Amino acid sequence: MKDHIYKHIELTGTSTVSIEDAVNKAIKRAHKTLKNLSWFQIVETRGHIGAGAVQQWQVTIKIGFALES
Amino acid sequence: MKDHIYKHIELTGTSTVSIEDAVNKAIKRAHKTLKNLSWFQIVETRGHIGAGAVQQWQVTIKIGFALES
Amino acid sequence: MKDHIYKHIELTGTSTVSIEDAVNKAIKRAHKTLKNLSWFQIVETRGHIGAGAVQQWQVTIKIGFALES
Amino acid sequence: MKDHIYKHIELTGTSTVSIEDAVNKAIKRAHKTLKNLSWFQIVETRGHIGAGAVQQWQVTIKIGFALES
Amino acid sequence: MKDHIYKHIELTGTSTVSIEDAVNKAIKRAHKTLKNLSWFQIVETRGHIGAGAVQQWQVTIKIGFALES
Amino acid sequence: MKDHIYKHIELTGTSTVSIEDAVNKAIKRAHKTLKNLSWFQIVETRGHIGAGAVQQWQVTIKIGFALES
Amino acid sequence: MKDHIYKHIELTGTSTVSIEDAVNKAIKRAHKTLKNLSWFQIVETRGHIGAGAVQQWQVTIKIGFALES
Amino acid sequence: MKDHIYKHIELTGTSTVSIEDAVNKAIKRAHKTLKNLSWFQIVETRGHIGAGAVQQWQVTIKIGFALES
Amino acid sequence: MKDHIYKHIELTGTSTVSIEDAVNKAIKRAHKTLKNLSWFQIVETRGHIGAGAVQQWQVTIKIGFALES
Amino acid sequence: MKDHIYKHIELTGTSTVSIEDAVNKAIKRAHKTLKNLSWFQIVETRGHIGAGAVQQWQVTIKIGFALES
Amino acid sequence: MKDHIYKHIELTGTSTVSIEDAVNKAIKRAHKTLKNLSWFQIVETRGHIGAGAVQQWQVTIKIGFALES
Amino acid sequence: MKDHIYKHIELTGTSTVSIEDAVNKAIKRAHKTLKNLSWFQIVETRGHIGAGAVQQWQVTIKIGFALES
Repeated sequence: MKDHIYKHIELTGTSTVSIEDAVNKAIKRAHKTLKNLSWFQIVETRGHIGAGAVQQWQVTIKIGFALES
Repeated sequence: MKDHIYKHIELTGTSTVSIEDAVNKAIKRAHKTLKNLSWFQIVETRGHIGAGAVQQWQVTIKIGFALES
Repeated sequence: MKDHIYKHIELTGTSTVSIEDAVNKAIKRAHKTLKNLSWFQIVETRGHIGAGAVQQWQVTIKIGFALES
Repeated sequence: MKDHIYKHIELTGTSTVSIEDAVNKAIKRAHKTLKNLSWFQIVETRGHIGAGAVQQWQVTIKIGFALES
Repeated sequence: MKDHIYKHIELTGTSTVSIEDAVNKAIKRAHKTLKNLSWFQIVETRGHIGAGAVQQWQVTIKIGFALES
Repeated sequence: MKDHIYKHIELTGTSTVSIEDAVNKAIKRAHKTLKNLSWFQIVETRGHIGAGAVQQWQVTIKIGFALES
Repeated sequence: MKDHIYKHIELTGTSTVSIEDAVNKAIKRAHKTLKNLSWFQIVETRGHIGAGAVQQWQVTIKIGFALES
Repeated sequence: MKDHIYKHIELTGTSTVSIEDAVNKAIKRAHKTLKNLSWFQIVETRGHIGAGAVQQWQVTIKIGFALES
Repeated sequence: MKDHIYKHIELTGTSTVSIEDAVNKAIKRAHKTLKNLSWFQIVETRGHIGAGAVQQWQVTIKIGFALES
Repeated sequence: MKDHIYKHIELTGTSTVSIEDAVNKAIKRAHKTLKNLSWFQIVETRGHIGAGAVQQWQVTIKIGFALES
Repeated sequence: MKDHIYKHIELTGTSTVSIEDAVNKAIKRAHKTLKNLSWFQIVETRGHIGAGAVQQWQVTIKIGFALES
Repeated sequence: MKDHIYKHIELTGTSTVSIEDAVNKAIKRAHKTLKNLSWFQIVETRGHIGAGAVQQWQVTIKIGFALES
């Protein structure tokens, strides 16, 4: 098990569909500019309400990724 | 950005289907008697077990809504 | 309401599909060796990332069950 | 298991006697105006001191009750 | 020390001026419809940003008030 | 002071009488199958409401006990 | 309402009888050397187990008291 | 950087004016009897309500100071 | 409501004047290099003490801003 | 990545030497009766004091291990 | 098991060597003026950085000790 | 005391040796690309288990550093 250093960042993904979709949208965006994304953890699940229903899921996650040494 | 006052209430929605459905059921019920529902936050996700499977999702949320001035 | 004693255990279920599926997998496994499973509570939702998407949902739950007296 | 929606409220009961008595006083008061009280959870236990002894137990609880559909 | 029962509600006050002003706005609004407001506690301090500065302070407080017996 | 290893388990005791009685019921049950019970800590105090009064105290505790080496 | 400054200290009271008795023992001891004790808050409830029962309740409280100006 | 030992104490300052003023009042009082006060951290912000407005800000802080060796 | 992805960063602003001023200093600095700053949340309020008074307010905030897609 | 179910247990290891040694003692003991130990997390670090020095480090950890399917 | 009352104090020990050494330094200092030191718990581990390395470990602990009756 | 703005980042350092070594590895890596590193705080201590022993310490820290103005 090699000794890596990992960095954590915090993002909020949004989706009209589901919690899982909001998480995947945040990860997809992070993947555009960061390599080695490794794990995530849900920090908070909120959302926007309109017309008596959820209009948007807003899921905040921490993402961990290995830094190049 | 107008200066509103918001009130928060806490509800538990239940569903046999999914976490998202339980949240929407709680919001739909609140919408019957309250105007201006604006946002929610998931506070706790629990459930009832029967026959080795989830029988009911019980999701507690905080809902915020603007008070009439 | 009879006075039971309940024990709590903590498990992590994993799934490539959804948070709900990971919870159900953990409960299904517990059901193999324990009787009287009664309720659960989600403690943490994490996951493994690969190719810019969630590869595995990892959901930790507490499960409560009545002990035989 | 019918799908109810539950509301939670927070009250502080007070008593010169015990923690249990303070909880029961808060529940008795809520029962005057709310139907279907179902469960409670102790949130905080504080009190007033006088003459080197507890003069009043102040116990804050959350109460959950089913909303009429 | 009479044995009262207290109820707690949660409000968010907003202000363009200061944290203290946002708290007072929430209390002033609660005072319109509730008697016997007794104490508050700050739960969360957030705000809206525009043009590189705070545009609105959003302070969430719990308010406690004695119920009529 | 000998170097022991301790294990912790989590139980919920229930009682119609008091918080202390619920704790003792959980410990009495654990004592049936485990030796060397050493300490406990209250984790949560909840209960069931009926007829405007507490019908059952439900107290969750962690219990620590030394493992045989 | 005069503007006092209050100091908080943390004590653990112990009792073979009950949680309430352990709290009162801690307050009685503090009263020996400190004037103006005003309020307390329970921080933690633990205990010692022997012979399958609670042998000693150990209740940690914060006590607040006004300082002389 | 010399190796000091620091002690922390907890005080509540009160003020009719502002949160900042309540913090300064607590620090000023501590300064009367303690040398080397070094830093503080706000632990809790509460207050007393009267006539639909804040009558007194009550801010609890931890103060750290170096002990003489 | 468009589906944005938001990033959160954590900064500490400092001020000799007030909590509000320390928050604004941190936001002003973030605004130099980041577009679309949207909201903030106070995470911690600390400070430096000298001569029996607050010499510097140190307020840690989380700032959220929309990422370009 | 195969879909395993993991169980978590909580142990306290003790040592006169160091925090790391106490963690390893707890893991070594768990290894006697459990296969597939995978990860741990430190939950609490306490200790016993005697003669003005630490006599025993007491480190509580959670251990996760894969269940046989 | 005699019914003692315990007091808790909070100290920060510092060390250039290790976490364990910082804890022992805080305990050694407390031992100069307090009898009956019984246990400690680590509350926070921080430190000062210089030249790309830890220059000083700063470990905050709670210490409990029995009061003379 | 000059009014700086500080940024916080979160890293996980890993080591086969000790908690202190894992912290230093994370700081050494941050020092490669960031100036003015000032302090750190341990957020979480986890690790990987193999052959009944800790194979890797994984320590997550927050690091604070002054931003250039």
